[in-house]
Amino acid sequence: MFYGDDSPIAALATPPGHGALAVIRTSGKNVIELLAERFSAPQKLKAAAGNTVVYGWILGKDRGRLDETLVSVYHAPKSYTGEDGADISCHGGYAVVQAVLETLHDAGFRDALPGEFTFRAFMNGKLDLTRAESVMEIVSAKTGKAHAGAVRRLSGDLESEIRAIKEKLVRVLAGAELFLDYSEDEFMEAGTDERAGVLPERELAQGVLADLRELAASFRIENLYQEGALAVIAGRPNAGKSSLFNRLLKEDRAIVAESPGTTRDWLEAWIAVEGIPVRLADTAGIRDSSDAIEKNGVKRSIELIKCADVVLYIVDGTVGLVDEDKQFLHSGEITGKPLIMVWNKDDVAREMTEPPAGVERVSAKTGEGVLSLSARIAEALAGRKADVADGRIGVASARQKALVDRVVEQVADALDMADKGQALDIIAPSLREAVDCLGEITGEVSTADILEVMFSSFCVGK
Amino acid sequence: MFYGDDSPIAALATPPGHGALAVIRTSGKNVIELLAERFSAPQKLKAAAGNTVVYGWILGKDRGRLDETLVSVYHAPKSYTGEDGADISCHGGYAVVQAVLETLHDAGFRDALPGEFTFRAFMNGKLDLTRAESVMEIVSAKTGKAHAGAVRRLSGDLESEIRAIKEKLVRVLAGAELFLDYSEDEFMEAGTDERAGVLPERELAQGVLADLRELAASFRIENLYQEGALAVIAGRPNAGKSSLFNRLLKEDRAIVAESPGTTRDWLEAWIAVEGIPVRLADTAGIRDSSDAIEKNGVKRSIELIKCADVVLYIVDGTVGLVDEDKQFLHSGEITGKPLIMVWNKDDVAREMTEPPAGVERVSAKTGEGVLSLSARIAEALAGRKADVADGRIGVASARQKALVDRVVEQVADALDMADKGQALDIIAPSLREAVDCLGEITGEVSTADILEVMFSSFCVGK
Repeated sequence: MFYGDDSPIAALATPPGHGALAVIRTSGKNVIELLAERFSAPQKLKAAAGNTVVYGWILGKDRGRLDETLVSVYHAPKSYTGEDGADISCHGGYAVVQAVLETLHDAGFRDALPGEFTFRAFMNGKLDLTRAESVMEIVSAKTGKAHAGAVRRLSGDLESEIRAIKEKLVRVLAGAELFLDYSEDEFMEAGTDERAGVLPERELAQGVLADLRELAASFRIENLYQEGALAVIAGRPNAGKSSLFNRLLKEDRAIVAESPGTTRDWLEAWIAVEGIPVRLADTAGIRDSSDAIEKNGVKRSIELIKCADVVLYIVDGTVGLVDEDKQFLHSGEITGKPLIMVWNKDDVAREMTEPPAGVERVSAKTGEGVLSLSARIAEALAGRKADVADGRIGVASARQKALVDRVVEQVADALDMADKGQALDIIAPSLREAVDCLGEITGEVSTADILEVMFSSFCVGK
Repeated sequence: MFYGDDSPIAALATPPGHGALAVIRTSGKNVIELLAERFSAPQKLKAAAGNTVVYGWILGKDRGRLDETLVSVYHAPKSYTGEDGADISCHGGYAVVQAVLETLHDAGFRDALPGEFTFRAFMNGKLDLTRAESVMEIVSAKTGKAHAGAVRRLSGDLESEIRAIKEKLVRVLAGAELFLDYSEDEFMEAGTDERAGVLPERELAQGVLADLRELAASFRIENLYQEGALAVIAGRPNAGKSSLFNRLLKEDRAIVAESPGTTRDWLEAWIAVEGIPVRLADTAGIRDSSDAIEKNGVKRSIELIKCADVVLYIVDGTVGLVDEDKQFLHSGEITGKPLIMVWNKDDVAREMTEPPAGVERVSAKTGEGVLSLSARIAEALAGRKADVADGRIGVASARQKALVDRVVEQVADALDMADKGQALDIIAPSLREAVDCLGEITGEVSTADILEVMFSSFCVGK
C-alpha cells in the first residue's frame, strides 16, 4: 500500500450488483488526457470545462465500443479530491464495469486503494478527519438515526466541537506556560511561589473536562446506531423461532439493502428497531437439524449466541419451560448476556401456562405483543431510554473515541496534579499532549501511519 | 401502472447496498424547479446550463441537511429520456438514499416505474426497442461475451439488421401489391394470369427467409450468454461435491457481484465457464443431512436437478459406482438431462478403480482435470463449439425471438403458397403481417400493451 502520490486511480464507486447505472470514479494527474485515449469524443472531453458532463462511448484497447457513458469532468482544485477527476456513469452491470475498468488499467490507471479518494481530499485540505470518517459512516448508516448523526459530522459539527474544546484547552495551556516564562526567582521575589497549586484558567479546564467526558460517553450510543447490534433468536425446536423471526421482520422495518455476504447456514436479516440497526439471526436452521448434523449445529448456535448483544430466548407458551430450556438458561454461554425471554403462542397459551415474571408474552402468529418486544430490545441495547441519541453531536469512530479518552485522561491528570500542588512545569506537558490529541482527531496533527490505518478501513471507490 | 405521462419521477439507479456513491435519477416536467426546493443552492441549480454539475446539499422537509451531493443537470431534449432531468450523486448508503428519496417524494416526485426512464427515452425517439432492450441486457450481462453481444445491440447493430431485412421484405410486398393493382381482366387480356404462381422478387424473399432463420437460430446461444445456465452438482455423501464446487469457483472465475438473493439451504455461486454464466449449485447441504431432514433434502435436491441445464454427477473414484449411484443415474429425474459423470479423487483413485467410458477424471483436491471438465460443461450447454457466438449479431430477448419466429412463419407461408400457385391477393397479407412484425421488433409498430409488458420487466431506475 502506498497512499499519497497523485497517480491516476480508478474504482467502482457504486455498490456491485445489478442496477441501471454504475459510476467509476477516477482522480489524479492527467486523468482527463488518459481517459480521452479511451473515449469516442476525445477532443470534446479534453476541451470540457470543469463541472460539465460529456457524452460518449468508452472504448476498449482495440478501440471497440464498451459502453455508452456520461462523463462528469472535474478540474483541480474544484473536485472531491482536489485533483483533476472524471466520474464515468456507465450501465450498471457486472461485465460492463469489468470491461471499463480493464480498459482504464490498460490506459495507465491503477486500482484505487480503499479510501484513497477521501485520503487525497484530506491531504488537499478538502475536509478534516472527522468529516472524512463521517463519509464512511453515511455510507454504512442503516437507519435514519444513524444517518442523521453522520450527516452532522459531515457538516462539520464534530470538527467545530473539537476545535472549540481545543481552543479552550490552548488557553489553559497558554496560561500555564505563561507562568513558566517567569523564572523561579521572580516569583520568589514576589513573596509566593504562585506556580504551585494554582492552575490558571482552572475552571475553564474543568468545563473542558466535563465536555470531553460527555463526548466520550456519546460513543456507546453513536456506535450502536452506526454499527448496529446482533440479536440472536434461540429456543427449542418448534418454539416458534422462525415465526418470530419473520414477524419481527414484518413489524419492524427490514433493512433490505445489505450487500451480498457469504452463504450462511442460519437465517439473518437487518431490521430497524426504534432506529437501531439490529442484525437478527435465527438459529432455527442450525439447531433443529437432527443427529449427525446436530452436534455441529448446536456448536454454531452457541458461537452465534456468544457474539450476541441480546438473546431472544423463545419458549413455547403452550408447553411452558421444560428441562432443556432451564439447562440452556443456566448454561455458561449466556452468563452476563442481556436475555429477553419470549413467551410465544400467547394467543392460545394464555389459559394453559403461567409464565415467569418479566417475560415478553407474544404471539408470533398474530403479531400481538411484538411492539412491546421491540421496545424491550431497544432498551436492552441502548440502555435507559434517555440514553438514546438526542440530537447532540457525538464521536462515532473507535479512533475518535480512543483519542478523546486520552484527552480526558491528560486533562484529568493535569487537574489532579494541580490539586495536589504540583508545579506548573510538571502539569504543562499533560495539557500539551491533550491539545495534540485533539489535533489528531481533526487531523491537524497526524502521522502517515495513522492516516494509512484509518483510510485503509474505507471501502474502495470512496 | 401508467406509463406515458411526463410527471416528475425519481428512483435509485445504482444497485442497492454499500458503496461510496449512489445515483438517484430524476426526469420529467419541472424537475429542476422541484429539486431546487430541496437544494441548498436553488438559484445556482435553476440557472445551471444543461450537462453541468452543481454542488450542494439535499435538504429535508424541515430544511435540515440530508446529504452533500453533486447534481448533474440535463435540459430537454439533450438527456437520456429526452426530458429535463437531474442525476443526484449522493453518498451510497441505505439510510441516506431513503432520506433523499423521501424528501423528493415530499417535494412532488413519484417513484419511477420499472424501465420508465428508458420508456420515456423510447417515446421521445431516443432509441428503438432493440436498443432499449439491450440496455437491460448490458446491466444483466455477467460475462464479457454476454456484454459484447449486448453492446452491439446497444450500438444499433440489431436495429440496422432488422431494418435492412424489413426494407427487402417491403420490396417483395410492393412487388406483390403492384400486381394486385391490375384487375383480373387486364391479365386475362394479356393472355395469361400472371398473378398465379409468380411471386415477384421471389429470390429476394428466399434470401430474407434464410437471414431470418439464422437470426432466430441465434437466440439459443445469445440467450445462454445473457441468462446463463444452471449446473447442479449431485452425488453420494463424501463423493466430494463441496470440494468440486469450491474448485470450480477457483479455476473458473467466480462472478462475485450478484445482488443479494433469498437465503437458500444449498450453496450456489455464479461462475464464468468459457464466457457462459453458469449458476453452480451444490446439493451437498441438502443431501448429506441425516434422517428427519433427509427426506425433505432429497426432495429439494431433485427439484434443483429438474431445473438443471446440466448435471454434474460426482462419483468417489476410490470407491467406484455403487448401487445408490446406479439408482440415481437410472432414475426418472435425470432422463433426457445432459449429465456429465465426474470421477473424483483421481489423484489417488487411478490405480484403484476403472471408470466407465466418457467420464471426466478429476481431482477436486489438486485441480487436475478441472479445465477439461469446464470445457465439457461449456460444450454441454452451448452445443458444438461452432455454435458459440462468433461475433454475428443475434436476437437476445424472448420478445424479439417470438416476433422473428412469426416473420419466418409468414414469409415461409407466402413462399409456400406461391409455390402452390396461389394468387397474389392470397399471399400478400402474409407478407404484410411479416413486415408489421419486423416493425414491432424495433418499435415502429407497437401498442401500449406491448410496451407496458416489455418495460415493466426492466429494473427500476432504468
